[in-house]
Amino acid sequence: MKRVLLTTAYDGTAYHGFQIQKNDSTIAGELIRAVRDLTGEEVSLIGGSRTDAGVHALCNVTAFDTESPIPAEKFAGALNVRLPEDIRILGSFEVPADFHPLAVPSRKTYEYRILNAPCPDPTRRFYTLHMHCVLDEAKMNTAASYLTGEHDFASFCSAGSRAESTVRTIFEAGVKKEALPDQAGSLITIRVTGNGFLYNMVRIIAGTLIEVGRGAIAPEEVSRILDAKDRTKAGPTAPPQGLFLVKYAFPGLDTDFSL
Amino acid sequence: MKRVLLTTAYDGTAYHGFQIQKNDSTIAGELIRAVRDLTGEEVSLIGGSRTDAGVHALCNVTAFDTESPIPAEKFAGALNVRLPEDIRILGSFEVPADFHPLAVPSRKTYEYRILNAPCPDPTRRFYTLHMHCVLDEAKMNTAASYLTGEHDFASFCSAGSRAESTVRTIFEAGVKKEALPDQAGSLITIRVTGNGFLYNMVRIIAGTLIEVGRGAIAPEEVSRILDAKDRTKAGPTAPPQGLFLVKYAFPGLDTDFSL
Repeated sequence: MKRVLLTTAYDGTAYHGFQIQKNDSTIAGELIRAVRDLTGEEVSLIGGSRTDAGVHALCNVTAFDTESPIPAEKFAGALNVRLPEDIRILGSFEVPADFHPLAVPSRKTYEYRILNAPCPDPTRRFYTLHMHCVLDEAKMNTAASYLTGEHDFASFCSAGSRAESTVRTIFEAGVKKEALPDQAGSLITIRVTGNGFLYNMVRIIAGTLIEVGRGAIAPEEVSRILDAKDRTKAGPTAPPQGLFLVKYAFPGLDTDFSL
Repeated sequence: MKRVLLTTAYDGTAYHGFQIQKNDSTIAGELIRAVRDLTGEEVSLIGGSRTDAGVHALCNVTAFDTESPIPAEKFAGALNVRLPEDIRILGSFEVPADFHPLAVPSRKTYEYRILNAPCPDPTRRFYTLHMHCVLDEAKMNTAASYLTGEHDFASFCSAGSRAESTVRTIFEAGVKKEALPDQAGSLITIRVTGNGFLYNMVRIIAGTLIEVGRGAIAPEEVSRILDAKDRTKAGPTAPPQGLFLVKYAFPGLDTDFSL
């Protein structure tokens, strides 16, 4: 028996999220089906960030146990030919049999991407939130700075979360704006790195920073929203298509599965 | 009667190109249907860059004549509610009744976008060509420089073109590379501005520059390929999904329809 860790990228548009579901197609469901196709085994996935329907990943991480003689590093290619084009395995690595992605310290980075422009861009419709009102990214960046550090993020957690504690640490949070050379408007990216995220946390952070950007909430208000520990004090949950899990790393893991 | 010019953006993934076809859905077909829905008129489109199936546009330009009392600038919004989300009208403008996009000097800019990375990115699969072999963008840029100026581009024109002359002027041609912060690899963009392009011309330029980037053709060879006036001397026609019409301007037109 060996434990194989997979790094995966996917376009979440066509899926009901990462986590396996009975009747809907999910990223985990496709991965499990591809392993079954390849080895005949019915595996369970160990860990993996539970991204919502419509949310994308440039690097999510999950693992499974297999009795297959196939070398761990060969799984990537063998699974890719059994997966649809909107899910790709970036790499496959053998990890210690007791390695569990959720049980060791990790750093995840999410980006929330906003097309801030008078007109929508059809080629970005599944990968950005389009906002036509002008957003002040400097204010959004100031607001984001209040999120860094260890905080109780209860105000930034949707009902239905099964997390025991709502305390998380945000290592970095920032907002940057890039002009789009041939289009009116710009791309605003909210980037947040932390040791873990609550249910809908990044989308509520995005919804709140958008309120700051359009002037409905003052940047320093974010500090009071945190203190309130009350979901109703934060902004709305931003829609899923702007959200990307861009990085998922395990600082303590010897195996280097970086690309 | 008035002539209305439309600036349009579209995701070409689901369409058989711009130009109207009997049985397949096309951008022009959707635009004509939307005008019919709005005004009851069966219009013909005047001009419009005839992008191929799978090719995208950030700004294509076409026009039509209408007897409708709706002010020209109101067409954009009224048509957008009648169009699918992968086609957007950016603006609508009244132009002189004798204005024809193909009969006046114009400048078009195309980009061909390549994801040069060991692994594909599912979220870019419809908007880039994925190449895993390393491309030398400096060599590609040198090769592109031979294309600028007035040349006979017969070597860069697919059979089936109905153009009377294969002479065109390229004002600018260049290749740039951007690192992708959270992914192995980079984005290579070929950008070409000219007064007009032959059938498949940008895709053959892209296919040829890719051959240069991977070392199969020397940069200075591009000059000899031009001189040969022979399609078989150039590289292959690159696939459509990496191609974007990013700008389409009429330097002589008074009406400013820029965004």
